[in-house]
Amino acid sequence: MNENSPKNLNVINVGLSSFADTINGAGGKAINVEWRPPAGGDVAAATALAGLVNNSVIENANRTAFEKYLNAQPVLEGIGRAGDVIPNMGERTILYSGPPIDWQNVCGPVHGAVIGAVIYEGWAKDQTSAEDLLRSGEVTIDPCHHHSAVGPMAGIVSPSMPVWMVASKADGNKAFTTLNEGLGKVLRFGANSPEVIERLKWMQKTLSGVLSAALSASDGIDIKTIMAQALYMGDEVHNRNAAATGLLLKQLAPRAVRSNLPADDIAQAIEFIAGNDHFFLNISMAACKVMLDAAHGVPNSSMVTAMARNGVEFGIRVSGCGDQWFTTPAPVVEGLYFPSYSIADAAPDLGDSSITETAGLGGFAMAASPAIVQFVGGTPADSIVRSREMEPITIGRNDALTIPALDFRGTAAGIDIRKVVDTGILPIINTGIAHKEAGVGQIGAGITRAPMACFAKAILSLSESRIE
Amino acid sequence: MNENSPKNLNVINVGLSSFADTINGAGGKAINVEWRPPAGGDVAAATALAGLVNNSVIENANRTAFEKYLNAQPVLEGIGRAGDVIPNMGERTILYSGPPIDWQNVCGPVHGAVIGAVIYEGWAKDQTSAEDLLRSGEVTIDPCHHHSAVGPMAGIVSPSMPVWMVASKADGNKAFTTLNEGLGKVLRFGANSPEVIERLKWMQKTLSGVLSAALSASDGIDIKTIMAQALYMGDEVHNRNAAATGLLLKQLAPRAVRSNLPADDIAQAIEFIAGNDHFFLNISMAACKVMLDAAHGVPNSSMVTAMARNGVEFGIRVSGCGDQWFTTPAPVVEGLYFPSYSIADAAPDLGDSSITETAGLGGFAMAASPAIVQFVGGTPADSIVRSREMEPITIGRNDALTIPALDFRGTAAGIDIRKVVDTGILPIINTGIAHKEAGVGQIGAGITRAPMACFAKAILSLSESRIE
Repeated sequence: MNENSPKNLNVINVGLSSFADTINGAGGKAINVEWRPPAGGDVAAATALAGLVNNSVIENANRTAFEKYLNAQPVLEGIGRAGDVIPNMGERTILYSGPPIDWQNVCGPVHGAVIGAVIYEGWAKDQTSAEDLLRSGEVTIDPCHHHSAVGPMAGIVSPSMPVWMVASKADGNKAFTTLNEGLGKVLRFGANSPEVIERLKWMQKTLSGVLSAALSASDGIDIKTIMAQALYMGDEVHNRNAAATGLLLKQLAPRAVRSNLPADDIAQAIEFIAGNDHFFLNISMAACKVMLDAAHGVPNSSMVTAMARNGVEFGIRVSGCGDQWFTTPAPVVEGLYFPSYSIADAAPDLGDSSITETAGLGGFAMAASPAIVQFVGGTPADSIVRSREMEPITIGRNDALTIPALDFRGTAAGIDIRKVVDTGILPIINTGIAHKEAGVGQIGAGITRAPMACFAKAILSLSESRIE
Repeated sequence: MNENSPKNLNVINVGLSSFADTINGAGGKAINVEWRPPAGGDVAAATALAGLVNNSVIENANRTAFEKYLNAQPVLEGIGRAGDVIPNMGERTILYSGPPIDWQNVCGPVHGAVIGAVIYEGWAKDQTSAEDLLRSGEVTIDPCHHHSAVGPMAGIVSPSMPVWMVASKADGNKAFTTLNEGLGKVLRFGANSPEVIERLKWMQKTLSGVLSAALSASDGIDIKTIMAQALYMGDEVHNRNAAATGLLLKQLAPRAVRSNLPADDIAQAIEFIAGNDHFFLNISMAACKVMLDAAHGVPNSSMVTAMARNGVEFGIRVSGCGDQWFTTPAPVVEGLYFPSYSIADAAPDLGDSSITETAGLGGFAMAASPAIVQFVGGTPADSIVRSREMEPITIGRNDALTIPALDFRGTAAGIDIRKVVDTGILPIINTGIAHKEAGVGQIGAGITRAPMACFAKAILSLSESRIE
C-alpha cells in the first residue's frame, strides 16, 4: 500500500470541517481546527483590523465609552406628545425604525404602518390619498434614531402619538418611544385596519392620560432596577417582558388610583397593561438607547452604539464613527412561525428593538430567560450557550444587570466591532417576525444574527478616521 | 512482602466511604459503592418496607391518589372571617402550624404569636393576662391542618382574622389561610409588638375589604395557572413569590379599582401587595393543601399528603394512614442568617409552608428559581441538582407545573414514603428561620430536609393497617 493512500494521510485541517470530513470518510485521519478568516475573508477589512488591534488609543476610548454606558441611569420621567417633545420632529414627519431608507423602497410592514399613521393623524381618509401625500413629499419619513427615538418592528411614531420620555440621570440625555400596542394586528407589525387605528386613539386619549397622571405623582421610575429584577424573573427584556411589565405596573397602579381620573379609565389602563406582557418592551428599548447614546461619540471607540433594521437593510452605528450607518441587506429570520405561515411569508429583519442586544440584553441575556425558547426556538441549554458565546465579542460585563443561571455574572455588553470581525462571532438577536406584506401583522418570532458586512464596513471607516 | 499487606488489598466497600478512604490512604485499592441501608438502619421499618414494595395494591392506591392530586383545580374564591368560615374553629380557638402540641410545650415564636393573637382579638390587654387565659384553657389552640387550614411559620389564625378561601373545582374541597403580613417584625415569626397588631387590624379592616370586593367581581382566580406562570418567572412559590404576587395583582387591581371603595383604600391595598413579594405565599400554600387533601384518604396509598412543623416536632401525614401524624423532633436549619444572628439563635424548623414541597413545589421546584439561592444558600447549579434529586422519591411528574431549566419537564411530585425509606433521599424544604425566642421575628432562611424517622414510622403504620 502506497504511503500516500488515504489510509495513511494525517492531516490538520484549518477552517471548513467539510475538508476534514472528506478525508476521514475516505479512511484518512484529519483533525479539524476551528478557524474562520477575519472579516469573513474580506481582505481590506482584515488588513484594516490588523492596525486596530492591541491599540491603546482604541482600548482607552472603549474604556471611556463603556463606562459611560455603565454609568447611565435611565429613568422613566413621563409621557409627552411626540410632535411636542421629540427633537426636530415637526408636525408632518413620521418616524420609522432602522437605518435611513427612501419612502419608495420601504418594506411591506413599514409601508402599511406609515399609511396607518397618516390615517390615524387624520391627514388622509384612505390608503390611496395617504399614498398621494407620501409621494408628494407633503408628509415625510425619517429614522427614529435620528430623533433620539426607538420603535419596535416598523417603529412608527407620528406627531399625535403619546411617547414615553426616558432620561439618564448621569448625562441628562433623553430617549423617546411609543406605548406598546400588544400583539396580533398592530401598527408596528404593519397592520392598519380600523381596529388598529381605534386602539391607537384609545391609547392617545385614555391610556396616556392615566399613565401621565401616575408618572407625574412620582419622581420618575428607575428602569435599570426593573430590568435587573426582571432578569431574575425569566425576562431578557426584548422578546420576554412579562415580569418587567408586572414590576412597572406595581409602581404605576397605586399612583394611577390616587389620581382624580375616572375609575373606569384607570381600570381600563391597568387591564390593558396587565393583558400585554410586551408592554415594557418599548421602555426597555428607550432605556437601552439612553445607555448607548451616553457611550456614543467617543473618538476612536470601536463600541457599537446601535443595531437597527428597516426590513430592507440592517445597520449599525459605532461610538467613534459619528452619525454614519454601516448597512447591508437585512437577513430573513429562521424562527418559529405561527400556523399557516413560513419563512417565505416573512419580511427581512425589522425594528429598532435590537438596541436591547446592543446594550447586552435580549439575545445577549437569553440565559436569564429559559422559557423564551418556546417563543424563539431552541432549548433552555442553548439559551445559556448563546449568552456565553457573546462574551468574546464584548468589551465587558454589566454588573448592574446580572444573570442567575450564569452564577450571577453581569451580562456581556459593549459589542466591539474589532472582536466581531476578528472572531467571526456575530451578535445574536431575538426578534419578532412581520409578514412581508402590509396589513397582515406578526407571523412568528426567532433568533437571528447581525450580518458581518456591517462590522467589516465599520472597521474600514474607523481605520480611516482614526485620530492618534 | 506479604500478600495481605495493605498494598495488595483489593476491596469493594459498600456504604460509608471513610472505610475505603482508610484503605486507600494506607496504599490499598478500594472501590466505594454508594449505598445506605433502608430506613437509615431501622430494622423494623426496613422489614415492613420489604412487604410494601412491588405491591400492586399500593401501586394502584398511589395511582388513584396521585391522579386526584393532579386533577385538583385550586381556585381563589374569596375572603372570609376565620371564625365564620373555617370548619369547627369557633370563637375561642387559635390555630397554629404543624402537628399537634400542648400549649405549655410550644416553641418561642408560636408562643409569642399566640399571645399576639389574643391581644389582637382584644381577649387580653397584655402578655400576662393573655398567658392566664391560655393556661386556664379559656382560650385553646389547635393545629391549622385539623381545620382545613395552613399557615406559614407560626401559622397563627384567630377568629377575627380575614382568611383566603381556596376551593378545588374538581372535588369541591376547600382550604383556608391568612393574608401574608410581609417580612420583618410580623406575627408569623413570633413578633407581637403594637406595630404588628396595628398592621393586622389594618389588614382586617382595609385590605380584606378591598380584596373581597375585587374577588366578588370575579368568578374566582385560577391559582394553578398563576403557579405555572410563576415557575417560568423565577419563583418556586414557597420562598420566592415575587412573580406570582405580581400575577395575582394584575388580576385583582383592575377589579378593585372598579369597586366603589375609597380610592385611598384601594391604593393602600395595591401598595401593600406591590411592596410584599411574599404576598402570594399563603395562597400558594392553600392551593397545595387543596391539591393534597384531594389525594388524602385513599386506603393503602403511601403518598405523603402533608409535611408540617410546629418548631418542636416535624410531622407528616400519609394518604392511606388517615388522620395520624408521624412525628420526630424538628431539625434546626443550616441556612443564611441575617447579620448578628446564627444557628444558635434559631428555633427548630417551623411552619405549614412545607405543604408546597409536599405538592412538588418549593425546594422540589428550585430548578425554576436560580435566584433563590441568594436567599436560602447554594448555587444556581445546586438548585437544578436538588430538583432532580427529588425524582427517585416521588410518584410522578406534574405536567401542569413545568420547569424551563429541566427542559420543561413537570415538577417531581407525590412523595412516596416507601421510596424515601428505601433510598434514604430526604425531601428537601426551602424555609424561613424564626428566632427561638418570642417577639424577635425572622433571622434567616435556608434549606433543610424532612427527617427519616417520620417516614420510617409511617412505613410501620401503613404495613400494619394494610387492607388487601
